[in-house]
Amino acid sequence: MSKWIEEELEPGLRAFYGLKKVLNSCQSKWQSVDVVDLECFGRTLMIDGLIQSCQIDEHVYHESLVHPAMLTHACPKSVYIGGGGEGSTAREVLRHASVEKCVMVDIDGDVVRFCKDALPENAEAFADPRLELVIDDAKAVLEKGGTYDVIIMDLDDPLEGGPCYQLYTTEFYQMIKSKLNPGGVFVTQSGQAGSKRHHLVWSPVHSTLRTVFPSVRSYNQAIYSFMDEWGWNIAFLDAAMGTLLTEEQVNQRISERIKGELKFLDGESYRGLFCLSKAHRETLAKETRVLSTEKGTYATMHSQGLCIAES
Amino acid sequence: MSKWIEEELEPGLRAFYGLKKVLNSCQSKWQSVDVVDLECFGRTLMIDGLIQSCQIDEHVYHESLVHPAMLTHACPKSVYIGGGGEGSTAREVLRHASVEKCVMVDIDGDVVRFCKDALPENAEAFADPRLELVIDDAKAVLEKGGTYDVIIMDLDDPLEGGPCYQLYTTEFYQMIKSKLNPGGVFVTQSGQAGSKRHHLVWSPVHSTLRTVFPSVRSYNQAIYSFMDEWGWNIAFLDAAMGTLLTEEQVNQRISERIKGELKFLDGESYRGLFCLSKAHRETLAKETRVLSTEKGTYATMHSQGLCIAES
Amino acid sequence: MSKWIEEELEPGLRAFYGLKKVLNSCQSKWQSVDVVDLECFGRTLMIDGLIQSCQIDEHVYHESLVHPAMLTHACPKSVYIGGGGEGSTAREVLRHASVEKCVMVDIDGDVVRFCKDALPENAEAFADPRLELVIDDAKAVLEKGGTYDVIIMDLDDPLEGGPCYQLYTTEFYQMIKSKLNPGGVFVTQSGQAGSKRHHLVWSPVHSTLRTVFPSVRSYNQAIYSFMDEWGWNIAFLDAAMGTLLTEEQVNQRISERIKGELKFLDGESYRGLFCLSKAHRETLAKETRVLSTEKGTYATMHSQGLCIAES
Amino acid sequence: MSKWIEEELEPGLRAFYGLKKVLNSCQSKWQSVDVVDLECFGRTLMIDGLIQSCQIDEHVYHESLVHPAMLTHACPKSVYIGGGGEGSTAREVLRHASVEKCVMVDIDGDVVRFCKDALPENAEAFADPRLELVIDDAKAVLEKGGTYDVIIMDLDDPLEGGPCYQLYTTEFYQMIKSKLNPGGVFVTQSGQAGSKRHHLVWSPVHSTLRTVFPSVRSYNQAIYSFMDEWGWNIAFLDAAMGTLLTEEQVNQRISERIKGELKFLDGESYRGLFCLSKAHRETLAKETRVLSTEKGTYATMHSQGLCIAES
Repeated sequence: MSKWIEEELEPGLRAFYGLKKVLNSCQSKWQSVDVVDLECFGRTLMIDGLIQSCQIDEHVYHESLVHPAMLTHACPKSVYIGGGGEGSTAREVLRHASVEKCVMVDIDGDVVRFCKDALPENAEAFADPRLELVIDDAKAVLEKGGTYDVIIMDLDDPLEGGPCYQLYTTEFYQMIKSKLNPGGVFVTQSGQAGSKRHHLVWSPVHSTLRTVFPSVRSYNQAIYSFMDEWGWNIAFLDAAMGTLLTEEQVNQRISERIKGELKFLDGESYRGLFCLSKAHRETLAKETRVLSTEKGTYATMHSQGLCIAES
Repeated sequence: MSKWIEEELEPGLRAFYGLKKVLNSCQSKWQSVDVVDLECFGRTLMIDGLIQSCQIDEHVYHESLVHPAMLTHACPKSVYIGGGGEGSTAREVLRHASVEKCVMVDIDGDVVRFCKDALPENAEAFADPRLELVIDDAKAVLEKGGTYDVIIMDLDDPLEGGPCYQLYTTEFYQMIKSKLNPGGVFVTQSGQAGSKRHHLVWSPVHSTLRTVFPSVRSYNQAIYSFMDEWGWNIAFLDAAMGTLLTEEQVNQRISERIKGELKFLDGESYRGLFCLSKAHRETLAKETRVLSTEKGTYATMHSQGLCIAES
Repeated sequence: MSKWIEEELEPGLRAFYGLKKVLNSCQSKWQSVDVVDLECFGRTLMIDGLIQSCQIDEHVYHESLVHPAMLTHACPKSVYIGGGGEGSTAREVLRHASVEKCVMVDIDGDVVRFCKDALPENAEAFADPRLELVIDDAKAVLEKGGTYDVIIMDLDDPLEGGPCYQLYTTEFYQMIKSKLNPGGVFVTQSGQAGSKRHHLVWSPVHSTLRTVFPSVRSYNQAIYSFMDEWGWNIAFLDAAMGTLLTEEQVNQRISERIKGELKFLDGESYRGLFCLSKAHRETLAKETRVLSTEKGTYATMHSQGLCIAES
Repeated sequence: MSKWIEEELEPGLRAFYGLKKVLNSCQSKWQSVDVVDLECFGRTLMIDGLIQSCQIDEHVYHESLVHPAMLTHACPKSVYIGGGGEGSTAREVLRHASVEKCVMVDIDGDVVRFCKDALPENAEAFADPRLELVIDDAKAVLEKGGTYDVIIMDLDDPLEGGPCYQLYTTEFYQMIKSKLNPGGVFVTQSGQAGSKRHHLVWSPVHSTLRTVFPSVRSYNQAIYSFMDEWGWNIAFLDAAMGTLLTEEQVNQRISERIKGELKFLDGESYRGLFCLSKAHRETLAKETRVLSTEKGTYATMHSQGLCIAES
């Protein structure tokens, strides 16, 4: 049988992935979750029919999300992860020897249970006593109390009608700022960031963060199985921390702080993450949109084209 | 009508591009050539059914191919382009005010004529009196005589049975070396260069060049419409030139030497091109394969998976 | 280039037709029209992205639509065609030597002009002095006046929101009945009629006609390029005419009345059209839905699944 | 997830079936076998990636294959089935009260075991004491001994390199003739039989049978999930039996002989099976190709286009 999974990457662009086998599926209250074996990308986690992470390169995404924030911080002891139910983000966080507590809050308990079983590479992280796993709303839990050295938002894209678009707003970022310890760092995944689509989410998230934090940096990295570059935004309580580390500093901190070998990130990779193209930097410089719950300006999704609805 | 062009990116991975219109087609002696309007990528040149360059991001590819070599050279006056029938490579070369002569040699006169008509953005380049256009074999013409400051190979991938695989070998690179003026620079496109497939062509071309030139650098850049990172290898007659320019040097040389505004490249983009991931650098470090006409070791294509046949 | 046209045949069933060439396209006030060359079906007329008729088997559809009605009539002199802008229905009608006048009323003048140019096999029909071509609403023109021996409705399926669903109702059929001369025959295309989908349009049109005419027969025939059996309903003013002709009668009338050779229809094919499967006849026997403008019960389309909305 | 199974129906024509679930899979010595749940066709048996039979209409195929032969025979007591591992052919045979013994010979024991488990509608047939199931070569077993009232070949198409092409030859049909009791009937599935592709297998099998049997009839029927008409050839030892039964005879014999209700076949459906179009009959009349093991003329498959290789 010639079996395929189809994904619409954008209107007029579809990918077909050769499907070797559906390994495991579940339907949670919130979403449908599948682990499949794809000919091109290996074992792959799909949520609501969209690729979340693939065996061949999930490490590129997760190392890029976690380590720049963790390495920039002087000594991260407490970390908050919003989302991240798959467990890979926690896995990367817990490799940092300094971490004493990692609170991971995902709204979908079924996904977490499912991934615990289906993804053996994260089993150690799920069993780590430093991990405090909470099945609840990432915003509500954070509001309730506690402060952190590093806060990481590993959320879905802000899809129209989805559960997450309110977690990409100036109001949410104000609240996050108030939960960071001095010297704290915040990082959020920020959607596609290649030459065509980086203005959909990545740049408005950047401009929104700039209304809240004294220093913000956007970065991006090609992820083969996402068929585009992906983007993140990192923000610092202390403006001075916005200065990039040197490659040597990165390499030294990795060797001092992180257990095991990273596959993707080191000093030079880190430098590459923050080298943006001329066109990307021009977009950031011109970006004035601010996402706001109050003003009703969200980055929302329209047939997989994300656009800002300004009311 | 729901019209689509299908491309097999690798076994088990197919892309479908929404086809608005076939704008122009021709069948040359060597290949079939089409200019189509794609919903996702705009006006697109396809050769033998594979995307060559797209309106939305051909500048990323061509600026990355041409300007690092041209800007590194002290003052490039004479340039040789092998392939490049589309005209975009010549266009970027001719933006450099120092250039007095640009010899472009493509074997397919029909493609060149077709692109002259179909791609208005390259009309000025084709009309530039400094351009010497030769319809012939890129190797034969170079062997016959002449030396150059910069040599650029903008060839097809070394497909099995294709016309180009002999132009990715140590013997060919020896000949090229002999045609470079002192201080000369050579650069060649080198195929896919993302995390999954950079070992197919990019790294063996690197190791092959290292057998010939005292200094070689590999670099890569995500190209959205190629749905992967793309790779190049640059080689220097003078080992000292292998040291990267600073971002400031790049910006200054661009402003002094290049007519008009670049869209993609500047100092920071240039720096990013040469920041390779840890995994990429490990591949390059371990790569020992040398492509050779004499030894019959080519990088050849097997249903779009390129592999080295070592005899 | 690997070019394809995609058609959704029903939810969960898609066909991809290899596209050799788009031969001609136009956008009328009402619909988009294309003549394409398909690898599997030859030259093909598509309207709004759906296959209308293909070189390899349009004769099966048009001979089945036209000749059973025409041959059953004692001597058809005047014929009314609603729709049929492509010209093939008129072509088959005009092969009958008895015909003195054929009025063809299609709302889309652009389609008619386009098909005149694009479909050479219908040129003779369009030039026939017996053809009276009117660009107008098929219902309005018929209401205005004139009576006919045979009335043929060659309309689009009754798509929700489309122009035709009111032309598949008891009220419309009452009007048609009043425009038939004594001994008159009415036939209408009635959509898909294979084992899975014959209840969507074919059987409710049958039951609706039975509320108006004393004798009605449904028939069907596999059309390869439609990837299903297709259906028609024929109705007679005179109940006695509902008795099928014998195969010999059909063959004799064909030889006496029709110019040239039919490719599909003869006595045995005719017999086959009216041999319905046990399951099809059970559906017809149980069908009680009546389509009515007044009652607001239409056969309408829902993502290509046609269903009856009963208000 | 948007999951699809792709089938190439002919070059330039592909179908995509929405895949709800893979229910069961096995790899036998001979072929890969899957039972899948398709959105459009329900539970479906696929062999080597090609649809074999679907819940929604397998009865149309199997009633058409079995009952015309069984009903024409005066009183079938012994029946031989070559192939038919799925069990549906045996199921239809065993509905005939006259049958005392049904020998079913399929080469692939794994397929038989798999279908026994996966297809509950055939469980009763597999448990019927009159069924003698043999896992072996259908030709070898028949040669060894025994004669039958009805012989049914429910084989794969004669694919090039496949296991079955020698079972569509004059030599094989000679042997079969010798294994029929007086008054015996033979029927074989004969591939696609729509307007485009009925000359590939259906008509050469017809002409081949005519070299062996005094009376042969070809018939066909649209099968929705096969996306074409399908064809069979039936042959009679006694020329007089080639005269079709009347519709009344068929209905009477069904009511006298068959347990339970048929869904597709009755007198009128039977009549329809044997009403061939003018074009089909012309193909049969002109067909002169004879398939022969000795002469090396097979109907063989070329990328799903079946063609006759005449040596």
